[in-house]
Amino acid sequence: MAYERKNIEAMQGYTSGEQPQDAKALKLNTNENPYPPSPAVADALARFDVSTLRRYPPPHADEFRRAAAAMHGMRAANILATNGGDELLRLCVTTFIEPGSALGVANPSYSLYPVLAAIHDCPVRAADLESDWSLPGSFAAQMNAGGAKLTCLVNPHAPSGHLTDVQALHAIATDLDGVLLIDEAYVDFVDPAIGYDSLELVRSHDNVILLRSLSKGYSLAGLRFGYAVASESLIEPMLTKTRDSYNLDTIAQRLACAALESRGYAQDTWRRVREERTRLRRALEDLDLPCPASQSNFLLAARSEDSSPAARDIYEALTTRNILVRHFDHPRLANRLRITVGTPQENTTLLEALAKIV
Amino acid sequence: MAYERKNIEAMQGYTSGEQPQDAKALKLNTNENPYPPSPAVADALARFDVSTLRRYPPPHADEFRRAAAAMHGMRAANILATNGGDELLRLCVTTFIEPGSALGVANPSYSLYPVLAAIHDCPVRAADLESDWSLPGSFAAQMNAGGAKLTCLVNPHAPSGHLTDVQALHAIATDLDGVLLIDEAYVDFVDPAIGYDSLELVRSHDNVILLRSLSKGYSLAGLRFGYAVASESLIEPMLTKTRDSYNLDTIAQRLACAALESRGYAQDTWRRVREERTRLRRALEDLDLPCPASQSNFLLAARSEDSSPAARDIYEALTTRNILVRHFDHPRLANRLRITVGTPQENTTLLEALAKIV
Repeated sequence: MAYERKNIEAMQGYTSGEQPQDAKALKLNTNENPYPPSPAVADALARFDVSTLRRYPPPHADEFRRAAAAMHGMRAANILATNGGDELLRLCVTTFIEPGSALGVANPSYSLYPVLAAIHDCPVRAADLESDWSLPGSFAAQMNAGGAKLTCLVNPHAPSGHLTDVQALHAIATDLDGVLLIDEAYVDFVDPAIGYDSLELVRSHDNVILLRSLSKGYSLAGLRFGYAVASESLIEPMLTKTRDSYNLDTIAQRLACAALESRGYAQDTWRRVREERTRLRRALEDLDLPCPASQSNFLLAARSEDSSPAARDIYEALTTRNILVRHFDHPRLANRLRITVGTPQENTTLLEALAKIV
Repeated sequence: MAYERKNIEAMQGYTSGEQPQDAKALKLNTNENPYPPSPAVADALARFDVSTLRRYPPPHADEFRRAAAAMHGMRAANILATNGGDELLRLCVTTFIEPGSALGVANPSYSLYPVLAAIHDCPVRAADLESDWSLPGSFAAQMNAGGAKLTCLVNPHAPSGHLTDVQALHAIATDLDGVLLIDEAYVDFVDPAIGYDSLELVRSHDNVILLRSLSKGYSLAGLRFGYAVASESLIEPMLTKTRDSYNLDTIAQRLACAALESRGYAQDTWRRVREERTRLRRALEDLDLPCPASQSNFLLAARSEDSSPAARDIYEALTTRNILVRHFDHPRLANRLRITVGTPQENTTLLEALAKIV
């Protein structure tokens, strides 16, 4: 007998990128930072007193909240620490979407969003992106017409790397009836010369939540640590009601603080990734794999319609060489590959393999 | 403007026991194990390679699942690893309770259960315990009449420490229309001479979920690690659909495995807690604070109606001495105190303070 709810029985779970335990694989498929975490994180781990694990962790991760608030020029009341960005996404669905109301998204986008809607048994309102991956001018109007109580936008966009500017986000936040979550999982890789500063959105809109993650920018995907920046009125119900009471373990809290404190180290990895992003994009174009400009740590390489081999075949040929990139079964992505920017040596290995395949 | 759902706006969040950061407090209020984690856990932490945090963790915690399965004589498909037992409780509510259906509980019980129901916007069906804290004979019938799709029973019971035997649980699992979650957060402290073995319930019922936690038995409340043992048909939707994709970080997975591997160390702490439980119960009775027999690592001490000071006053007098115990605002618990069993020295300190107060 099946005891699960009908919507759970009917839905498909989230499919993550492959996570081979084979350390020899060249892993350019799930957008990890190619550099290790800061030495300060290793120091914090070495100094950690295991006997403290006997007791419950600080329930609200207040030390981290204060550190993140100071970094962003906000107050701790504007910060919520979560078990990866994924927990924040789930909490927003749980907290802000009434049954029967919709989750709003752009299409294509992060494939977890519709999975969270399916778990919550709520419909998805999706607005197609323009051909250059920018948002349609009617985006907010489409979301409102669809009854979206929560709209999730990943910016820089995944899987294209396209960046929507703050002015456009201002307009969307103003027009939306519901909450706007801006998923900035990749924001650390935006070129600082652009001057992208989304924090002003939080200061000027009570319906904007920024999602930040330590997974990519701070090389801590294995630690599961993300956070929200938002008005206190949005943070409060998640902090005091819908969140699991002790959502973050003591070690993770300590290491996340160490990562923020040594932010200069992380910033240097961002600069190196940006440099390689530029080189890799040019080299992919030379291999008939042109990519739109990306402000993220990945590139979306496209094959033209009549090129052979097609993207899917290239993906498989790379996999047989133990090089993992990401291919999505989606109409607009079928002849494309999402490739994480690796170290210079990793990117060279990839390019040499591609030169033999295409 | 309030953006949260109406039920979220209306509800009260969970109130956990106080978690003072003052290391000098004698903390007998949230049922932590008084002994530190196993030296094998410290070794695993010391050996942990921080550079692996760059990558995502094993998504299903399969190494832990195999270790737990081997320990219980089950298969890995019968195990789900979760971010504390709390995550498992939430997943069960999300996965098994259709909107409008009820969550079933005993009253009084773990105060988190009705909070999870409020988040899910589902009613609670509560059956009052008998005066000796045992379940009423009509328990399953009451749950079925109330339309409970999921019933949560903490066993040994909190806050009394009363143990329901496996035979009675068999009968309830047989009679229930929905899923029975047996919350065994404290089961490690059951006297082995009793021969309580709930695993046979999982083998004989496809609607039974056992919740286990490393928080108390393995002195790892700060690590946030729990797990489910259940039929594959109950595990599968939580494992592949409703769970956050990477719910457990790499360090926690490694340390949890080390804790299970060195289970003999933990078993020794259980024996010491049982010995102190016996001594503390006798001493409390001598202080006009009699407790029902407890198979857990806490005692529920009662004041008689006409005794002075009352339980609430004793709680406050202890707090001023920096000794924390737990007092609940609940009709049947108002003149009682839940006291965690500490080390011999801690219990002696408590008893000396109580002797001055009562």
